[in-house]
Amino acid sequence: MFQVLTGTSVAGNNGWLTTDVVSGVPQRSPAWGAYSGSWPAQKRSSFEAQSLHLPSSNEYRLEPSWFGGGARKRAAQRGRCPNCYSPQQTTRQSPRCAVSDETYMDRCIQLALMARPSPNPPVGCVVVDPDTGRIVGEGFHPRAGYPHAEQYALQATFTTLRNASSHQNQHLAATVSEPVAALPGSARGMHVYVTLEPCNHYGRTPPCTESLIQAQVSRVVIGTRDPDPRTAGSGAERLRRAGIEVQFGPRAAECLKLYEGFQHRIHHQTPLGILKYAMSLDGKIATETGDARWVSSATSRRYVHELRARCDAVVVGAGTVRRDDPALTVRLEESIDVPELGYGQPLRVVMCTSAARLWRDRPDAKLWDTSVAPTVLAVSSAGEVSSSKELDAAEREAILALRSRGVQIAYLDALLPLPPTRALMQWLYDYGCTTVLWECGGTLATSAVRESAVHKILVFVAPKLVGGRSSPTPIAADLGVRNMEEALALRLGRMEVIGSGQDVLIEAYLDSNKLSPDAASGTT
Amino acid sequence: MFQVLTGTSVAGNNGWLTTDVVSGVPQRSPAWGAYSGSWPAQKRSSFEAQSLHLPSSNEYRLEPSWFGGGARKRAAQRGRCPNCYSPQQTTRQSPRCAVSDETYMDRCIQLALMARPSPNPPVGCVVVDPDTGRIVGEGFHPRAGYPHAEQYALQATFTTLRNASSHQNQHLAATVSEPVAALPGSARGMHVYVTLEPCNHYGRTPPCTESLIQAQVSRVVIGTRDPDPRTAGSGAERLRRAGIEVQFGPRAAECLKLYEGFQHRIHHQTPLGILKYAMSLDGKIATETGDARWVSSATSRRYVHELRARCDAVVVGAGTVRRDDPALTVRLEESIDVPELGYGQPLRVVMCTSAARLWRDRPDAKLWDTSVAPTVLAVSSAGEVSSSKELDAAEREAILALRSRGVQIAYLDALLPLPPTRALMQWLYDYGCTTVLWECGGTLATSAVRESAVHKILVFVAPKLVGGRSSPTPIAADLGVRNMEEALALRLGRMEVIGSGQDVLIEAYLDSNKLSPDAASGTT
Repeated sequence: MFQVLTGTSVAGNNGWLTTDVVSGVPQRSPAWGAYSGSWPAQKRSSFEAQSLHLPSSNEYRLEPSWFGGGARKRAAQRGRCPNCYSPQQTTRQSPRCAVSDETYMDRCIQLALMARPSPNPPVGCVVVDPDTGRIVGEGFHPRAGYPHAEQYALQATFTTLRNASSHQNQHLAATVSEPVAALPGSARGMHVYVTLEPCNHYGRTPPCTESLIQAQVSRVVIGTRDPDPRTAGSGAERLRRAGIEVQFGPRAAECLKLYEGFQHRIHHQTPLGILKYAMSLDGKIATETGDARWVSSATSRRYVHELRARCDAVVVGAGTVRRDDPALTVRLEESIDVPELGYGQPLRVVMCTSAARLWRDRPDAKLWDTSVAPTVLAVSSAGEVSSSKELDAAEREAILALRSRGVQIAYLDALLPLPPTRALMQWLYDYGCTTVLWECGGTLATSAVRESAVHKILVFVAPKLVGGRSSPTPIAADLGVRNMEEALALRLGRMEVIGSGQDVLIEAYLDSNKLSPDAASGTT
Repeated sequence: MFQVLTGTSVAGNNGWLTTDVVSGVPQRSPAWGAYSGSWPAQKRSSFEAQSLHLPSSNEYRLEPSWFGGGARKRAAQRGRCPNCYSPQQTTRQSPRCAVSDETYMDRCIQLALMARPSPNPPVGCVVVDPDTGRIVGEGFHPRAGYPHAEQYALQATFTTLRNASSHQNQHLAATVSEPVAALPGSARGMHVYVTLEPCNHYGRTPPCTESLIQAQVSRVVIGTRDPDPRTAGSGAERLRRAGIEVQFGPRAAECLKLYEGFQHRIHHQTPLGILKYAMSLDGKIATETGDARWVSSATSRRYVHELRARCDAVVVGAGTVRRDDPALTVRLEESIDVPELGYGQPLRVVMCTSAARLWRDRPDAKLWDTSVAPTVLAVSSAGEVSSSKELDAAEREAILALRSRGVQIAYLDALLPLPPTRALMQWLYDYGCTTVLWECGGTLATSAVRESAVHKILVFVAPKLVGGRSSPTPIAADLGVRNMEEALALRLGRMEVIGSGQDVLIEAYLDSNKLSPDAASGTT
């Protein structure tokens, strides 16, 4: 049994703005929230102002839209609406801010970011009373096998409207065994905001379109179509046929971003691979002596923990385990998860060519403690066929020892002739992963890039100089680039200054087609 | 004799918005100007709209204020005023845009950027009729020894007001020999905008404060105080005592930026050293084979030419001349200079340890053609005392040959015990330089950073991957950093996306005090 916030968003000082949406306990003051710090206190007394000027979500802090984060932040600092840049309005009906659909969608995105439903898409949903502009129900799809976001939001709406007089800190008790279905007319005339087009097929739950029709909502605002081409549009069509007003589009770019991994999984039958590294302004990831603690600032490292929390798996090489002994866990002061669901940590993956050697060198690695998070050892002999029975015995022994500690073993050789990093991605796809974070060193990173296991790169550029002829760089091995014209072209994504200028975060996408023909057969 | 635009700004289709401010000829459509592309055509018919919504200057395109460029650009794209973010106003008196002082100051900055007055500061000045909001006179301080910006602007005002009925494409003919002085009451009641506090001392021209008082202006708006602490504030004080309203501050940050080099020269008795390089997203400045054409995009390379045009000197090492044979000239399609003044090109400087070797290897280098731009060969034996008379003879011969081609020779050994790059900066200071651009390779760059000859770094980060174990990096030699904690900390300045995502430009400042103690005795 777990709890989803419902009525606490309606009014008063205990509203969701200052309350942890999941636990219901008051949040600590958001020190580096995008807008909260600059809001005049007197504006907060009105709920309408709160619902119009939402604080940005965790994901927004990490990846605001192209320069939009800056513009919105500046607008907020000047006491202006981040949407229309006009002085902050206290009523929803203000003609100056005709984009309030977008702020409700912001809240949906914020809710969706709390979901961990891989391989399903993360969805957030908000039900709004159009007469008052108030949010009367909220929900998100917590994880695969649980009801959908719309179901929770409709149930919450029903509870809120029934208990309209005693809604403060009202929680909805919902379990998986208890069927969550909308009662006829339970949300009559309400407006529904949802990040993804509602589903239109029978699965573990009845289709969300039927629930919305039965609840008699009057308008559904959808962030983006279902990326799956087989179902895209049919949900909206079903709602329209039932006489419900359907609108697409507010925060479409942000919603598409939300389904980046899901879309990649569907279209390419592989998880989205993200390579993350931190380098100095002169392109070094460590000093000549190999010291790399820390290249980026504490704020950036916090961002990395948020990023890990959003990914299904984190991959490193055996070299990183030998050198740094990382824990690869999400360590955040405030939880952004629902602890009751126990999905706080990503799958931790180590790539190696010999379990025996790694076990001999690091019998006490933090990764072998599977009580804090699951660990997978991905073993690829990479063509090194061992003829020594003794070595095989050591390998067996190491694997048995690791298994006894709860470590899963993935044999990548079984997936030959795929190159090792692609074989790992295939294994993780079968495991149900949507997004995989590569936090490896320069050599494995080169293999992952060459073998198309990486589709997106996140670079933290620290404003410092390291120098040194032999200091390691992010892509350390040979990519096969002889002339600058052959360099692997990326498409620049978003860019952000971390904190008050501690680091610069650059996002770039790899176009898989641009990889050289021999890339698929590359080696580690 | 040269010409400064005056009355063309007053009205009509030939206003300065669509006319080259220097030549008076219509400009080609600005393909990547910050605002011009998004303006609705019907708004342009009104001059008031033009004077309120200025296009950004060249320097703005290069270095907008922290994220401000993005916010302003987005606002303009939405058809909103870049200052107040409200829908564009057509009258200056609109209560929604109470910051029009800033737009006049923008124009002053634009004018100042046309000046090349090193070692004097670049100043721009605009005279506005407060009744109509129209600009009636403009001017800038073109180069040392010429009249100041205020003098030109007042003279232009006098001409404009006298010829109010025939002001289209009106030019002011002014020569150095002709004294430019304000006639009593010639700008009565006008508002004056000027980037720097007007001077208050007798030099080659009478003090600008006296001219402004004599012209009977009613208000003077000043971008920033004189950075020179000996004179700061006295000009404003003199104006106030004469009953003129004085205001400081609009676009103060941008104006301070304008005087960055001037301020550095005054406070530290050395020019501002700027190190510029372009690297890939994995920190490489060339491929393993040494190919570096081109790391950054054509748009970024255009920016570099704009940057060169703003600097007094450009420095490379002998290795760059041997390998690339650069011209180091400013090559821009549209001139941003006043050709009559002949200050279109920066001083080109080559650092070497032996003129004879460089002359033998590159007798036909583009830099030896001093008809296009002046060249300085900075020779530092760097402790290599030659005992061979033959070599000395070769050295003498090479220097004579280079001198006959017009190349100046700077003997850095005469400035010992200063380290070579610092000695060069000292030589360039004595030469009158305010800003020096280091466009050198990784080895000389390391020396310049170690020896505090670099104070600011501009990095173009290209979204591409190069890889390779031996690919060169921007700071290639040893900085003495063993642990990451010892890395040379920089202060992040501004950041910009070039074009539509071709490159990222990052600006960072070195804090000279943070250099290690042994840095001053470093070697090339």
